Amino acid sequence: MAQRTKVVVTRQLIDEAQRLLDTNTDLEIVQWHSSNPCDRSWLLEHAKGATGVLVMLSDKVDEELLQAAGAQLKVIASFSVGTDHVDREALKKRNIRLGYTPTCLTDAVADLTVMLILMAQRRAGESMGKVLAGEWPQMPWHPLLMTGPQISRSTVGFLGFGRIGQATLKRLLPFGISRAIYLTSKPGEPVQEDHFGIIKEAAIPIEPAKNWEQLASESDIVVVGCALTPSTKHLVSTEFFSKMKKRAVIVNIARGPIIDTNALVEALAQEKIFGAGLDVIENEPNISADHPLLKQPRCVLVPHIGSATIETREQMATESVKNLLAGLKDEAMVNEVEL
Amino acid sequence: MAQRTKVVVTRQLIDEAQRLLDTNTDLEIVQWHSSNPCDRSWLLEHAKGATGVLVMLSDKVDEELLQAAGAQLKVIASFSVGTDHVDREALKKRNIRLGYTPTCLTDAVADLTVMLILMAQRRAGESMGKVLAGEWPQMPWHPLLMTGPQISRSTVGFLGFGRIGQATLKRLLPFGISRAIYLTSKPGEPVQEDHFGIIKEAAIPIEPAKNWEQLASESDIVVVGCALTPSTKHLVSTEFFSKMKKRAVIVNIARGPIIDTNALVEALAQEKIFGAGLDVIENEPNISADHPLLKQPRCVLVPHIGSATIETREQMATESVKNLLAGLKDEAMVNEVEL
Repeated sequence: MAQRTKVVVTRQLIDEAQRLLDTNTDLEIVQWHSSNPCDRSWLLEHAKGATGVLVMLSDKVDEELLQAAGAQLKVIASFSVGTDHVDREALKKRNIRLGYTPTCLTDAVADLTVMLILMAQRRAGESMGKVLAGEWPQMPWHPLLMTGPQISRSTVGFLGFGRIGQATLKRLLPFGISRAIYLTSKPGEPVQEDHFGIIKEAAIPIEPAKNWEQLASESDIVVVGCALTPSTKHLVSTEFFSKMKKRAVIVNIARGPIIDTNALVEALAQEKIFGAGLDVIENEPNISADHPLLKQPRCVLVPHIGSATIETREQMATESVKNLLAGLKDEAMVNEVEL
Repeated sequence: MAQRTKVVVTRQLIDEAQRLLDTNTDLEIVQWHSSNPCDRSWLLEHAKGATGVLVMLSDKVDEELLQAAGAQLKVIASFSVGTDHVDREALKKRNIRLGYTPTCLTDAVADLTVMLILMAQRRAGESMGKVLAGEWPQMPWHPLLMTGPQISRSTVGFLGFGRIGQATLKRLLPFGISRAIYLTSKPGEPVQEDHFGIIKEAAIPIEPAKNWEQLASESDIVVVGCALTPSTKHLVSTEFFSKMKKRAVIVNIARGPIIDTNALVEALAQEKIFGAGLDVIENEPNISADHPLLKQPRCVLVPHIGSATIETREQMATESVKNLLAGLKDEAMVNEVEL
């Protein structure tokens, strides 16, 4: 009898994805079944002899793991959008393929972006805090009590204007925004891809910004949705905030370090901007209760839940299994990283 | 010299509205200038001889006030959507006209409705609470961590389907919802008014529900947007929640007593529904920190901020001044209550 192909999976998968994996009775499936992240020592021990490994964002894929696995390893399937946890060079020199799951979370992240925009404008964190503290009975009504800027007639500025930015814009159109501008790695140039057909068809102007100064100064809402690179790290700085409108809000659903946290704290404390809504932050998840940003009532911070919908996570799990199986059979993956 | 017409205004108004009022140099304007609500005794004292009174929601307009003012009083202009604070019968028998400001807040309330739907689905209150408590570093990532239902492919059920409900639906369309149903005071009958042209044009079915049981059982999102009447009080009850889907959320942006609070607490505690987003609640604003609903992590409660945008409140203030002036001159108001 031929030896079965071994795969290691660092997590119990969501139902449909687990069933898809389990139908492959020709595979020897070694799986970490706890609800906690996989132990590194367990992974190194069991990787030996594996042809494929399905990993989470919390599992480092490096020389150590590849050596522990051995020369037969031919596919890493990562249940993630980013691949920062994977040493691409190490895979490339061994001709190991890398699958990932970047596309299916667009809707979930765009939904959360709209939520954070509205929460920043409408003071959701601040007003919920007052209710939770029992202060509502002592808030005498007056016409400007807990008011914030209205989204209608806003100019929305996108730092990065890929699939998620465009999906966000699509959702914002019926709120009555009046204009969108965007800054990409090619300032002043129109984007090539119109993912949802809105750029051509929208009834409002959608235009490239010449530079970050223009985007900061003309936007009522700034959406940070670009990749983190050396040139975008701390792109949103004290200078950026100083050019923003006093009634503007900023939302970050991309990567924490694009915004200089100290500059944001200062901008909020000095009322240079109206509010902020963050799904990501520098040094996450190591944010303690005494973090200075948490003392700013106009800042909403949620714990990186952009893609955290049941439907999206189910689809990511299923796609990661498909990528694993495709890698074993030398077939096309749903999404493969070019190494 | 003719005696100037006296008007009493129970609040300092927002800039533009105050300027509009002050241009009327032919008026004797007596105004309460504190940022706290107007003292009742001050109002009763100064109403004497007034031809018009501009009031806030916090000022009761009753027999006592009308008698204190005297027979020359011809207009009450209320800076409010509701007129529960006004004794309409007392006005009617004196032929006093009543202006109010109901129309300009549609956008602000519809925006907040979308915010509350997303917050209820995406566990915004619960996840912000964990971050604020410093728990983020101790939240090991796993695929279903902090996940909630996704809005795409949802059926959205509207209890009440007037201007605000329809404006909410208009905003939800690009989120990829698949169907809308609604219940009005005429169950099973299509609504007459298509305020934004979406009912005819939308690419998804938009249909009347036969009864509340159908609406409760088929909706992934329930939006409470109907008027409070004897027949809608506690319409959302234990029975209603027992018919809802386990992954459904409910949002109330209308009036608190439409939802039975005890039933909601029980539904959340027993996981009969996924979450709730409330702008209003029974007995508001007397909600203390130990209110049982505040102990439910999947409930988001904000302090009746539906119309609380700077733009909307400015427009309401301006419209209330216009109504006051129109009443003095026997002209048409922007919005007048038929008594």
